[in-house]
Amino acid sequence: MRQSQLFTKVLRSAPKDEIALSAKLLERAGFITKVMAGVYEYMPLGLRVLSKINSIIREEMDATGAQEIYMSVFQNKETWMKTGRWETAKDVMYQFKDASGKEIGLGWTHEEPLTAIAKRYISSYRDLPRAVYQIQTKFRNEPRAKSGLLRSREFLMKDLYSFHADEESLNEYYERVVVSYMNIFKRVGLDARRTLASGGLFSKYSDEFQVLSGAGEDIIFYCGSCHYAANKDVAKELGLKNACPKCKGRIKEMRAIEVGNIFKLGTKFSEAFGLKYLDERGVEKPVIMASYGIGPGRLMATIVEVHHDKAGIIWPESVAPFSVNLLELNKADGKKVYDALQKAEIDVLYDDRDIGAGEKFVEADLIGIPYRAVVSPKTADRVEIKKRTEKGSKLVSLSELANILKLKPNT
Amino acid sequence: MRQSQLFTKVLRSAPKDEIALSAKLLERAGFITKVMAGVYEYMPLGLRVLSKINSIIREEMDATGAQEIYMSVFQNKETWMKTGRWETAKDVMYQFKDASGKEIGLGWTHEEPLTAIAKRYISSYRDLPRAVYQIQTKFRNEPRAKSGLLRSREFLMKDLYSFHADEESLNEYYERVVVSYMNIFKRVGLDARRTLASGGLFSKYSDEFQVLSGAGEDIIFYCGSCHYAANKDVAKELGLKNACPKCKGRIKEMRAIEVGNIFKLGTKFSEAFGLKYLDERGVEKPVIMASYGIGPGRLMATIVEVHHDKAGIIWPESVAPFSVNLLELNKADGKKVYDALQKAEIDVLYDDRDIGAGEKFVEADLIGIPYRAVVSPKTADRVEIKKRTEKGSKLVSLSELANILKLKPNT
Repeated sequence: MRQSQLFTKVLRSAPKDEIALSAKLLERAGFITKVMAGVYEYMPLGLRVLSKINSIIREEMDATGAQEIYMSVFQNKETWMKTGRWETAKDVMYQFKDASGKEIGLGWTHEEPLTAIAKRYISSYRDLPRAVYQIQTKFRNEPRAKSGLLRSREFLMKDLYSFHADEESLNEYYERVVVSYMNIFKRVGLDARRTLASGGLFSKYSDEFQVLSGAGEDIIFYCGSCHYAANKDVAKELGLKNACPKCKGRIKEMRAIEVGNIFKLGTKFSEAFGLKYLDERGVEKPVIMASYGIGPGRLMATIVEVHHDKAGIIWPESVAPFSVNLLELNKADGKKVYDALQKAEIDVLYDDRDIGAGEKFVEADLIGIPYRAVVSPKTADRVEIKKRTEKGSKLVSLSELANILKLKPNT
Repeated sequence: MRQSQLFTKVLRSAPKDEIALSAKLLERAGFITKVMAGVYEYMPLGLRVLSKINSIIREEMDATGAQEIYMSVFQNKETWMKTGRWETAKDVMYQFKDASGKEIGLGWTHEEPLTAIAKRYISSYRDLPRAVYQIQTKFRNEPRAKSGLLRSREFLMKDLYSFHADEESLNEYYERVVVSYMNIFKRVGLDARRTLASGGLFSKYSDEFQVLSGAGEDIIFYCGSCHYAANKDVAKELGLKNACPKCKGRIKEMRAIEVGNIFKLGTKFSEAFGLKYLDERGVEKPVIMASYGIGPGRLMATIVEVHHDKAGIIWPESVAPFSVNLLELNKADGKKVYDALQKAEIDVLYDDRDIGAGEKFVEADLIGIPYRAVVSPKTADRVEIKKRTEKGSKLVSLSELANILKLKPNT
């Protein structure tokens, strides 16, 4: 795409009302815009990143055998009364009356409506196990939405729900999702730790996935040697202060970003809705459930918190909005290179604007595309290529350039 | 996918609270479920159709040069006060106060917030023209939401907005979108007519795209010979009753389904927000705008209204949830055929369930996948293939089957 045609422009300075570094960088570089506290819009660059994250999530979810669905924002009061959460979740769930006086809630999670649907389709051991997921917009009343995409009031969520006949099936699928989650985080460039957390309904602990970063809201205690980790409450409960119980390594403390969580729900929801199945001998039993969440927008912000330098964002190749930022400088003509890269099916952001070289370099570093290619009177018939993560550049021919950009070892 | 693993099941009878045939068929066959009047959830089969429709829309939008974005549901009162629509659109726009007393609206269209964003990025003739679109969930307070996905209170919408320096640029892009819209409708299997409609802000008429169907809410007057058409009001105004003004053909009357509409907005929004640009001579001028809508969910329901028979849905190949429904009957084993089709990268719904042949045939016709392939003790090492639209079937070898299914003349 020609940068002269891009809908957004880099802003001269970071927005003054943002605290989180990821929000400052993403807004200034034109990835997102702000509607109100905790509510953001994705501009073309931002949506490209988000779509790549969503594709990776979909691939990993599909690989577990889960089926994608798309549920509603509007929630039925009667459905949420069955578990009592219409009342108990009032703090977090937006609720209002429409013009006719009917009460409507906005979805902040989907256990209740999905259990209601499952009751229509699950009645026998033959219908189990099942897993469905969606990537859908959720709403939570966050009084302190101050961290950009890290904690929003309107946000995308990938929520997965599984239904099982027995604990063995539940545990097997749950661990398969753990592997799937670790794949997702690794593929988007994040080193996440499976972290013991309180709040288990069915098992003693639930699992959170935490990325080490000072921008997070959570404190975790983690082993410096192996991947063992627990959040603050659980660490206290387990007396986890000195040595790692798994490998005796040294325990460290860090405020971290939660990028995913998974829960064994047991029969809480199935019992509230009467979701039962007949086993092989015709005996009626309640279905056992679990739920699993990842916020794609929060993931995007976390990637920025972890991958940046003073000059701007450094996107991992797997989620970058483009593979290469092609800059033409000092009246040189980059069109030949642009056409060649497009022909080689490489995603190029082509800076064809009539502005100074310095400004182009500054904006390229801020936007953070993994490779920068320069065409100038100095480069003659060659191209200067530089990785965003490295200082040194090199002059290469057009065919060498296409080869370098096609080799994506991290994806 | 194995049908024994599919999350949904065909229901014994159509839901009693639906009037629209498309809603009855889509709910019974497991494509959608209902949350409340005008609010639906997409199940795996339904989401597959919706995703294919969205892909076609994206391809055609991108081809016009438009850039995809993703805006928010939550709307800022201050932004909507600029045009006065916070007050004048109260009937259609859901509005409520959050716990802190702040007023929030739910997006039912996005001219106001997008014009606010455009002001950030458009200031010169060099920044024009621009076009951005999104596929995003919208909310409209419809007191009489009785037609399933044809008229919902929560619905997906593809909304495109364009920004121009002058009327010539506006008209040129507007007509390019008309071509793009006609491509979309044709590709999803709909014969839509460009229809003169009232309600133009900048031009005398706006344009609607209407599909002939008794299930629609609109009445149009159209020419039996050429594609000239006008809605009720405009037809009256033009005295369009006897002969077509273009080709003298006979004018017919029909209640139709509106599947898209496009408007020249002129400077209404740009003036309210002070969205101006400096032309080549440094003169400040207001930006001229247009907006263009298609509802992917309504499109899906319209396809069903037009393409069905007594036995169920008949999906056009371009949007079908699967290319072929493979039925194994009377203890025959379809796995070899299933594996071969999957290897050939053909999307198969494989009915491996241990139920009677009659039930399988009925459900296959209801779900409406374009091809049905049968493996039974009678077919030996061959496969009986039948198109959903045709009565006759034929016995073919496995390689012939893969060839037939790969030939998709309509896509």
